[in-house]
Amino acid sequence: MEKESICFPEGFLASGLDCGIKKTGEKDIALVFSLSDCISAAVFTTNRIKSYSVLWSLKNIKNPANAILINSGNANAACGEEGWNITTRIMEHLSEVLNVPVQKILFASTGLIGNVLPEEIIKKSLKTLVEKLSFENGIDAAESIITTDKEIKTEKIISSIPGRKKNSFVKFGAMAKGAGMINPNMATMLAFVTTDAVISKALLQSALKEAVNDSFNMLTIDDDQSTNDTVFCLANGKAGNKNIIKDSEEYIVFSRELKNICINLAKKIARDGEGAKKFIEVSVYDAWSKKDARRIAKRIAGSNLVKTALAGQWPNWGRIMAAAGSVCARMDPSKLKLELGPYTVYNKTPVSFDEHKCKKYLSGNEINIKIYISKGKETATAWGCDLTEDYIKINKSE
Amino acid sequence: MEKESICFPEGFLASGLDCGIKKTGEKDIALVFSLSDCISAAVFTTNRIKSYSVLWSLKNIKNPANAILINSGNANAACGEEGWNITTRIMEHLSEVLNVPVQKILFASTGLIGNVLPEEIIKKSLKTLVEKLSFENGIDAAESIITTDKEIKTEKIISSIPGRKKNSFVKFGAMAKGAGMINPNMATMLAFVTTDAVISKALLQSALKEAVNDSFNMLTIDDDQSTNDTVFCLANGKAGNKNIIKDSEEYIVFSRELKNICINLAKKIARDGEGAKKFIEVSVYDAWSKKDARRIAKRIAGSNLVKTALAGQWPNWGRIMAAAGSVCARMDPSKLKLELGPYTVYNKTPVSFDEHKCKKYLSGNEINIKIYISKGKETATAWGCDLTEDYIKINKSE
Repeated sequence: MEKESICFPEGFLASGLDCGIKKTGEKDIALVFSLSDCISAAVFTTNRIKSYSVLWSLKNIKNPANAILINSGNANAACGEEGWNITTRIMEHLSEVLNVPVQKILFASTGLIGNVLPEEIIKKSLKTLVEKLSFENGIDAAESIITTDKEIKTEKIISSIPGRKKNSFVKFGAMAKGAGMINPNMATMLAFVTTDAVISKALLQSALKEAVNDSFNMLTIDDDQSTNDTVFCLANGKAGNKNIIKDSEEYIVFSRELKNICINLAKKIARDGEGAKKFIEVSVYDAWSKKDARRIAKRIAGSNLVKTALAGQWPNWGRIMAAAGSVCARMDPSKLKLELGPYTVYNKTPVSFDEHKCKKYLSGNEINIKIYISKGKETATAWGCDLTEDYIKINKSE
Repeated sequence: MEKESICFPEGFLASGLDCGIKKTGEKDIALVFSLSDCISAAVFTTNRIKSYSVLWSLKNIKNPANAILINSGNANAACGEEGWNITTRIMEHLSEVLNVPVQKILFASTGLIGNVLPEEIIKKSLKTLVEKLSFENGIDAAESIITTDKEIKTEKIISSIPGRKKNSFVKFGAMAKGAGMINPNMATMLAFVTTDAVISKALLQSALKEAVNDSFNMLTIDDDQSTNDTVFCLANGKAGNKNIIKDSEEYIVFSRELKNICINLAKKIARDGEGAKKFIEVSVYDAWSKKDARRIAKRIAGSNLVKTALAGQWPNWGRIMAAAGSVCARMDPSKLKLELGPYTVYNKTPVSFDEHKCKKYLSGNEINIKIYISKGKETATAWGCDLTEDYIKINKSE
């Protein structure tokens, strides 16, 4: 139970197995289950073309949640009206097997767009999936939701919020799969956070929204947005803590820890970006507004030209400046300061720096870019990766 | 004089030569000159970080224009305050040599960001540049503004608007350099259109703005925006046509021809995109608004995942759907229709198509994507190219 997974908080079970959606024999279906009803919160893709799994969850997120079904290998998107009927029948079947009302089950999918889910093989697997539910199988679940992520992505945190039992504290667990169509066939960023905290639905949603804004929404692998992106947070109250109320110290701690979990997952996704050899962190300081700071950070992290320059360990800081200037944000070019790791390359005017040493720094697998806008006090950080020939190779072939 | 170049309309001279900005010995400075003052119009980059050449032209575009100086190999951007002083001194020197008031000279630059212009070698070249001005040297000018464009880009059109002389008509000439940081060191899309039409400044600006919206603004090579993008249109009135007035038939013809010139140049730039093997045209039909149509078309043409799929001749239409859905535009996913060349791949629901034949189509060097939104009557077309390993190779090395 102490393992880093969604089963880390009290009362969460999970399972995962290979039901045959992926042709490779890898695990492709997972179930997360709580011993009691959960307060649920979610953030979904803003894509106009949403998968039926997203549409299903959008419909049911208002209810208390008891379980989440997740499949990989098929996005359940853009597959015609039959997609909705199949989704409904699968969920109804799971409801029976699990003995949980269907409206208390959420759903997330990731994979190739354009095909209906293989209804029969999924339905056939559900009994085993439910039988395998255990406090020990969080890693199985984490393995079942990834596609070609090179590594599984899990997190755990013990907060400082006291639980009911002596020396117990509110806990968080989490898992995610990578962004950027990590597999050529697959789409989607998915993340799942569990907690045993007692908290209201409104506060949980508000904390999750804020956490996602500063984490997954500041992540870019290839600037392409999926039809399936979903972040869920389930809180089952098993810690028995004093109900977390608005503006309380506990809420501040809860929000901070939730955000930390999401940031850690986002960074892991960036590190594991398609074809990526380098992790890139872009920090923007002294921006006029938070929005300005976010836009600038994300544009720099998302610029193909910045990413290819970094792939070649080339300190072409002019591209960073051009990317920064290309978004709608207040700035005075004559006051900018730009740093590549420990090297200041621009400070109101170009600064001469040791290009040889800077290239050595850029040859590392972790690059920090800092830009000071000199217009205000707002800050934002974005994460991404370099753009390599491998990204092209991966994405051009089936 | 009949050559396809900016010297095609009456009264325009040009020259181009190698002054030593580029280390390769290729031509890198050009001059366009009109025998009489021109009505001028321009559209500049919206980047917050503008080159000093753009700032110079922004300051002087209100005046009648007599000449445009253009250099390649150095962007004249983000190079500190001295950049402005050098720009001013170069323009003052040209003003003397050319015997034209300095405020009547426009300026455009393209190249690496972050270095001041080499003042002395440019100034030294200006006398020869002026001496070489001729009706025959439009091609020299076109050669001097490109960077690693594989081909020069010029256009000419004879309109149906009658000039003063019998059987004479208003003419257009044009040249451009490629987008997408075609050379790793270089930035910028630049385009120059000349015409001998008699037309007011307000109408010329309005026609140019509209033309740019439907041409260069619908072009994407890598979604990166430069600090130097500039489109100029100069009209010197030498055709002696009846002044073109608002809403007249002549204005409609003039605008259409100007737009055609710009669209032709934009397509040439797309075909010659960095590392590009395929030209991609995305047409959006039946959108709710023009803005919606443009956004969808441009997002599809700009999606890394769509572009890599096409590089691999892979009919992964799900990526096109996801890209279309990811922008802020009204659409009902259940009513979309999508065509890859002659193959309908989606019509409210996935359509089965001959994948083998479709791949053969995608192996060509010209791909048409058509998407029908079924929300209104608006249309837009965007142009781009595929994303290949060569793009990465070109852009990661100095």
